[in-house]
Amino acid sequence: MQRDSIVNQIQQKGSFLCVGLDTDIRKIPTFLLDYEDPVYEFNRRVIGATKDFCIAYKPNIAFYEAQGVSGWKALEKTLAEIPSTHFTIADAKRGDIGNTSSLYARTFFESFPFDAVTVAPYMGSDSVQPFLAYEGKWVILLALTSNQGSADFQLIKNNSGAYLYEEVLKKSAEWAGPDRMMYVVGATQAQSLASIRKLIPEHFLLVPGVGSQGGDLEAVFRYGSTSDVGLIVNASRSIIYAGGNNENFADAVSEAARTLQKEMKTLMGG
Amino acid sequence: MQRDSIVNQIQQKGSFLCVGLDTDIRKIPTFLLDYEDPVYEFNRRVIGATKDFCIAYKPNIAFYEAQGVSGWKALEKTLAEIPSTHFTIADAKRGDIGNTSSLYARTFFESFPFDAVTVAPYMGSDSVQPFLAYEGKWVILLALTSNQGSADFQLIKNNSGAYLYEEVLKKSAEWAGPDRMMYVVGATQAQSLASIRKLIPEHFLLVPGVGSQGGDLEAVFRYGSTSDVGLIVNASRSIIYAGGNNENFADAVSEAARTLQKEMKTLMGG
Repeated sequence: MQRDSIVNQIQQKGSFLCVGLDTDIRKIPTFLLDYEDPVYEFNRRVIGATKDFCIAYKPNIAFYEAQGVSGWKALEKTLAEIPSTHFTIADAKRGDIGNTSSLYARTFFESFPFDAVTVAPYMGSDSVQPFLAYEGKWVILLALTSNQGSADFQLIKNNSGAYLYEEVLKKSAEWAGPDRMMYVVGATQAQSLASIRKLIPEHFLLVPGVGSQGGDLEAVFRYGSTSDVGLIVNASRSIIYAGGNNENFADAVSEAARTLQKEMKTLMGG
Repeated sequence: MQRDSIVNQIQQKGSFLCVGLDTDIRKIPTFLLDYEDPVYEFNRRVIGATKDFCIAYKPNIAFYEAQGVSGWKALEKTLAEIPSTHFTIADAKRGDIGNTSSLYARTFFESFPFDAVTVAPYMGSDSVQPFLAYEGKWVILLALTSNQGSADFQLIKNNSGAYLYEEVLKKSAEWAGPDRMMYVVGATQAQSLASIRKLIPEHFLLVPGVGSQGGDLEAVFRYGSTSDVGLIVNASRSIIYAGGNNENFADAVSEAARTLQKEMKTLMGG
């Protein structure tokens, strides 16, 4: 998917919301367990309830992998349910030596038709390049993540005073431009967004951590947005499990997405 | 698997060889494509040909994931072929926020009976802890990898002059001892092994990069070995594809493993 298409969706919908499909068969409404493929059935209803309020979906691959063969089948069917207007992100956090990263790229860009995959930077350039070899596909590189452990290594300062995540932004920005690469910056890191924008003024940021992880949407927008918004904010558990164990859970899911979309539209000045 | 069992295997066999099952259906002998499950059939023969010369097997998860459902089935059957005496490593390089890492751990330690999984350190402590929650299972953390890109970030020096990978070793050594954690250090990084051993004198190292990647086994042993060897050296392509496209490829595979085992036995003073 081209950058223009993403920006257009954001403007048309007054939304930069990504719905994270972290679908755990242990947490979905129990009545769905009677269906042949409960995970797919849950996702199908979540997508139907949220697609008017979001511009992207981000299946968390761990949740499907943990279900084995049936999980991969559910993922395949789930992707087929997502409208082609929506940006699709494989949240896989892969990254390995070149010949291995090529295979991960084959999985998410060929076997599955994802638009983007999240990649871990630790192994450096040749672990990321195979994902960039696919025209029209995106790499979303981990920069400053939303979890507590992000401080362990991402906030180590080098001998010129720059944090590791800043080194990752600087070096990786030479590998691909804002039309091919995005970065993960946690919503819990809003105070760092202003300095991050000095390093990468145009790249889109994928921002998890709003909702269950406690991130502040207004602060994220104030410090992280660009002229074309430049943000894709993800919420997972706070949306998809909003309906609890009810038969009509999709109504609450829709409402949770709509509430965030309204807040986003207001922030966008609409 | 307990550390003692690994050390005993090494001593009994005069080998610290791990065979990497990086099985690419595009590279296996073509006659195997007539079998119902070519990848499994190839692995079954490779295991039979190498099990007397190695103490561990390391399926590279990317290669199975890229085959979709059939790949996961081949992986399941492959694991069942590996003798219980051998240490099994899921080379997955996973790592995510806690609730997601828990699911990756469930996949490789519950759905599959692996003894160990490789984990990427970038996201810090809470991305690694869920893997350590499994008694008797191992985390093999990326430290200094064998690829060229390893220099991009792993060799960044902090303001007290330590490399990032040294910070990873120091901090993570507080999370688990040498009975639960190992580290990946590439064979192409032998010159760094002496200083690495000052930081982690007892932890086992998983050393890829001997063979196709050009690492030097003798240098790895000289600078990296401990009183109980403390090394698991992996070779993948140079062993499993040694037989080319021949019907009797397993003979060359066996010979390639035996040659490395002999070299290892000599280095061990046997």
